[in-house]
Amino acid sequence: MHRVKVRVVEDALDANNTIAAANRADFDREGVTVLNLMSAPGAGKTTLLERALPGLGVRPGVLEGDVAGSLDADRLADKHIPVTQLNTDQGFGGECHLDANMVRSALPSLPLSDIDLLIIENVGNLVCPAEFRVGEDARVMVSSVTEGEDKPLKYPLMFRACELVIVNKIDLLEHLDFDMEKFDYHLDGVHPGVPRMLVSARTGEGIHEVRDWLVALTSRAGAPA
Amino acid sequence: MHRVKVRVVEDALDANNTIAAANRADFDREGVTVLNLMSAPGAGKTTLLERALPGLGVRPGVLEGDVAGSLDADRLADKHIPVTQLNTDQGFGGECHLDANMVRSALPSLPLSDIDLLIIENVGNLVCPAEFRVGEDARVMVSSVTEGEDKPLKYPLMFRACELVIVNKIDLLEHLDFDMEKFDYHLDGVHPGVPRMLVSARTGEGIHEVRDWLVALTSRAGAPA
Repeated sequence: MHRVKVRVVEDALDANNTIAAANRADFDREGVTVLNLMSAPGAGKTTLLERALPGLGVRPGVLEGDVAGSLDADRLADKHIPVTQLNTDQGFGGECHLDANMVRSALPSLPLSDIDLLIIENVGNLVCPAEFRVGEDARVMVSSVTEGEDKPLKYPLMFRACELVIVNKIDLLEHLDFDMEKFDYHLDGVHPGVPRMLVSARTGEGIHEVRDWLVALTSRAGAPA
Repeated sequence: MHRVKVRVVEDALDANNTIAAANRADFDREGVTVLNLMSAPGAGKTTLLERALPGLGVRPGVLEGDVAGSLDADRLADKHIPVTQLNTDQGFGGECHLDANMVRSALPSLPLSDIDLLIIENVGNLVCPAEFRVGEDARVMVSSVTEGEDKPLKYPLMFRACELVIVNKIDLLEHLDFDMEKFDYHLDGVHPGVPRMLVSARTGEGIHEVRDWLVALTSRAGAPA
């Protein structure tokens, strides 16, 4: 009798990671770089995209994750950015994050062949989105200074799970008690040396740095291995 | 053979509701009014409590729900408010909400006989906390004006699940594009006529109204039926 010994790897048991890998393969086939963008509600992800994406040089697309509504998708469509809405409110109160399967369900409605950089705007939440890979190349989180400098200590996994922290709403700093040194100290405590950029998506301050980063990510990830 | 027909009610199948009812019975036995306080991360729940609880007239206590750390509990302890910390980071990334069982696990460490009003400060999150009753008398949510006026549309269950909406950080209104009329309109769309209070926990503006509401809730809920 022919026997094949299959080694069951822990990751293979995790349906989410399996589906994330399938998404990844589809993105690779189309040469699309994918970014998972996460933050608390109201930190300014959509405003950041409105500022950063037009005229970027690479062709952007956005997958909008929301519990309900299509407000953010409408805002981006107004800027002529290809956008697909993904609502999570099928359950009782709605899913508080995107997972690989939800993203997979949206793939057929994404014009992948016309996109170089796909931004997946996750549901506003500092806990669960960090736990679910969706097939992305990089994870970026937006932290608004209005949320206070203690957030890295209270939501350590989220701040650990990203490759870049965008500190937003710095135009409000002079009206807040926010202590940037303390924030940096707390952030280095949970994710030593993670790159961070100070921006105001509202005024445009610092946005060029984000744009440069996105373009560099796209050429790096899109380059043949 | 003796047969008893048991009607299985849907709620009885829901372990969370069963445990919430047990919590409720314990709170009633001790004459404690319980408030479930919810918001997005950094909306100002703890600062609000620091402002509203000292010298309230009724004896407050706080159960602090956080993924990790005890920063908020430390701040309240500094104000001589009895506080118990409940961390949810036992799982991989931490639970994104409190449920009835987590609250129940904290009951033995709460000095219920010395408390008239127990505030349960939930994990900062606008999705899942609204789905789990914990045995509370009332649910209050804090919405910061820095989060934008679209939040009721994006997180409808949360805004529907509460008896009072506290609109915080109004001291920043003059520096924001926040449109209060739009916010009211969106809020009435998902929860028509829900009471709302405009406050600045930082400056103290409007806090007397919150204090009066808390005292009224405590006498109403604590009154013999």
